Amino acid sequence: MKKLEKITPQLENFARWYTDVIQNGDLMAYGANKGSIIFKPLSFGIWDNIRLNLDREFKKVGVKNVYLPLLIPESLLQKEKDHLEGFNPELATVTEVGGKKLAEKYYIRPTSETLFADLFKNEIGSYNDLPLIYNQWVNVLRWEKTTNPFLRTREFLWQEGHTMHSNAEEAKKLTEKMLLIYEKFVSEYLAIPVMVGQKTEHEKFSGADFTYTIEAMMKDGKALQAGTSHYLGQNFTKPFDIAFKNQNNVLENAYGTSWGVSTRLLGALIMTHGDDRGIIIPPKIAPIAVDIIEIFANKNPKIHETALLIKSELDKLNIESQIDDSDKGAGFKAANSEIHGTPLRVEIGPRDLDNNQVQLIRRDTLEKKLVSLDNVTNEIQKLLNEIQENLYKEAKKRLYENIVEINNYEEFKNAIELGKWVLCAFEGDGQDETKIKEQTGASTRCMPFELPFIPKNDVCFWTNKKSKRFVIFAKAY
Amino acid sequence: MKKLEKITPQLENFARWYTDVIQNGDLMAYGANKGSIIFKPLSFGIWDNIRLNLDREFKKVGVKNVYLPLLIPESLLQKEKDHLEGFNPELATVTEVGGKKLAEKYYIRPTSETLFADLFKNEIGSYNDLPLIYNQWVNVLRWEKTTNPFLRTREFLWQEGHTMHSNAEEAKKLTEKMLLIYEKFVSEYLAIPVMVGQKTEHEKFSGADFTYTIEAMMKDGKALQAGTSHYLGQNFTKPFDIAFKNQNNVLENAYGTSWGVSTRLLGALIMTHGDDRGIIIPPKIAPIAVDIIEIFANKNPKIHETALLIKSELDKLNIESQIDDSDKGAGFKAANSEIHGTPLRVEIGPRDLDNNQVQLIRRDTLEKKLVSLDNVTNEIQKLLNEIQENLYKEAKKRLYENIVEINNYEEFKNAIELGKWVLCAFEGDGQDETKIKEQTGASTRCMPFELPFIPKNDVCFWTNKKSKRFVIFAKAY
Repeated sequence: MKKLEKITPQLENFARWYTDVIQNGDLMAYGANKGSIIFKPLSFGIWDNIRLNLDREFKKVGVKNVYLPLLIPESLLQKEKDHLEGFNPELATVTEVGGKKLAEKYYIRPTSETLFADLFKNEIGSYNDLPLIYNQWVNVLRWEKTTNPFLRTREFLWQEGHTMHSNAEEAKKLTEKMLLIYEKFVSEYLAIPVMVGQKTEHEKFSGADFTYTIEAMMKDGKALQAGTSHYLGQNFTKPFDIAFKNQNNVLENAYGTSWGVSTRLLGALIMTHGDDRGIIIPPKIAPIAVDIIEIFANKNPKIHETALLIKSELDKLNIESQIDDSDKGAGFKAANSEIHGTPLRVEIGPRDLDNNQVQLIRRDTLEKKLVSLDNVTNEIQKLLNEIQENLYKEAKKRLYENIVEINNYEEFKNAIELGKWVLCAFEGDGQDETKIKEQTGASTRCMPFELPFIPKNDVCFWTNKKSKRFVIFAKAY
Repeated sequence: MKKLEKITPQLENFARWYTDVIQNGDLMAYGANKGSIIFKPLSFGIWDNIRLNLDREFKKVGVKNVYLPLLIPESLLQKEKDHLEGFNPELATVTEVGGKKLAEKYYIRPTSETLFADLFKNEIGSYNDLPLIYNQWVNVLRWEKTTNPFLRTREFLWQEGHTMHSNAEEAKKLTEKMLLIYEKFVSEYLAIPVMVGQKTEHEKFSGADFTYTIEAMMKDGKALQAGTSHYLGQNFTKPFDIAFKNQNNVLENAYGTSWGVSTRLLGALIMTHGDDRGIIIPPKIAPIAVDIIEIFANKNPKIHETALLIKSELDKLNIESQIDDSDKGAGFKAANSEIHGTPLRVEIGPRDLDNNQVQLIRRDTLEKKLVSLDNVTNEIQKLLNEIQENLYKEAKKRLYENIVEINNYEEFKNAIELGKWVLCAFEGDGQDETKIKEQTGASTRCMPFELPFIPKNDVCFWTNKKSKRFVIFAKAY
């Protein structure tokens, strides 16, 4: 067991706090492979739970899982130029096998639009074959220059959904439906509130007609794109010649969408809820919801018996728990539970047990509660629900409090400098966005579907034009 | 929807039968990427169920899931020479990114012993840190020259377990324990009986001290290695310098195991149970256990209502079903259900329904049974259990009937030629095994832990030495 190290306080240095908590919380390790990380049992357990729960939601709307190859032949990726250009500098390329040069190069998938297009071409004959709603849970690679565990790694895990439709209307509806599934999932399970909206032309996915996004606010004020859903129109079906016979027996190119969330969600979860003691995992997604901690167990054999009893009761309720019966001290055990983000811990000590009681300690508020053994599982269930709700409520309050309005560029720069999100009228184009980012570090995050408030000022701070197009700007991960 | 094509009978040409059923059964598609396949919803659904159920068994014995990077730096793989040599000709190698040459090459993992070694080195300090029992569900790549869908593809999916122990005894026990989990799983879920045993020195995994295996018999008599568990001893911990302080405070190299099953299991399942009408999926692993087929639904609205009713009853019992309410004919619908291997189908037609009855048709025996609507879900549950048992029983009978004894090399060759497995005394070495394989196509599959019978002849057919070392020879996939 590793020694627990001191965690840099969030306010002192947020980036260092992040690195400290992910390493002390046994979430990841660096390996021999630069720019990629090892997902240790705790972080992979969270990802496994994300997959399990999100996949259940997908299946309710008819999504079918498939698996497509890792490698994309050079000739295939070159068919859609915008798409290729968007990824080209980041493409890891297989050129040889066993020391011998290959006739054709292969790219490790940075995403699989082209591979799915190749599949769809063969699957689709007539409108009867549509829609096709496919998804895969896979690893992808993008050779990023600067990396940050979970947030931006060369290899990451994600799900990528790819669909084909017989008309634009249906495809656009699905683009929205999947985004709303993401919003619901991150709110309910990860306790992360988000702004839901559309990306500007400048920030959309290369190859999409438009991109929808959910944007989360980290504790340092930075935005994190937590999930995206793209309406691809006929951008891939034309170059790949994916056509179906419509009801008038005329060949027509199909309409596509793609959508995904990735292991970035782990970064979002850590930076939304974590505090100076470590990470905090919302109960609904936690691999371990309850730590059962024995204190001075050598003084009373009933302590270990009680731990086992509570665990078996929780097992019956499908609440995952683990017992710490090591010979470490009570303080170490408490800190160890806190640093790993377990939402609730039960402390069983000799004195309380004499009174037929145990202590419950919430990870979020650190509140302690003495409860009777007769009522302990009920209390645990109640508290886990309260923790889940409280984490979401706190994060939502922070999100709404930190979106501000501005009257001019000076105020814009000040707000961004203070780590705020700015909601404002904006009529600039992509070149303007590039300049603003160079000057302030802020990028457009989305044009929200529902405004958190109506800004009083409807004049664009950059072009001075009047506008009803309200955009959120923020620094982002 | 694709037209159903004729399936080559198994006895006419087994290899063509296999290719016919996997394509007609919508299990896979060929893509742009040579040597790899696309897992379509049905085959990926089976793999998903394998993962779900096997993972549950793993967790019961304390296995923790992790995720390690896809790419192995050249310098890391070179640390264990036997291991490297075993895989070198098949290693897909990343040499450039975005057109620029990399300073160091990366191999796409063919397996991850070296990456796990690199992780373990940092995780292990003292005997208190052991055992470590890790597993990952991932894609791996081996650039095979000849490929066959599911059986041997350049990319495949698998789980690979990797463990570290403080003593050889414990590691050896775990090697056996994991093998027995595989045996139980393939028997109970995939209805595939296997011979359980140890590989010869010649056939063991490169880098292992010994390899345990489960070997299944396909309908053409060929063997298929369905899962392996390796005792690695200190073969990786010495070159990688993975050491722990033992109870005497002395540094000692840890002891390792690794074990895995792959998407080859899908090939095993198809070739164990399939018949001339298509594949047959055992109920316990089937993504769809019941096809509910409406016949002449336009003649009576009650037909569709009944289909919905049965589906909702099955939903409650967690039995996955789907309704075919298309306008195709009854014969097409039946053949379509059969070719996709759905274990049981319910046919709802106007005449039966007038008598408050529906037809249940088993996929394995093709037996039909008229049952009352009042009792239909009970009957379905009963029949699904019977189908699961029957598939296993039939396969087990075939396995035991086709293992034979021999008195000399002539008989050996004849038996192999007839597609039998030969159980015989064998004292030859690796070179002898190579010669026998060249001459007959047969390789040693395993030295069974429990002999299916005791061969009367205890003289080795090759060396003429007396021997109690009984080995199974067979042609294999």
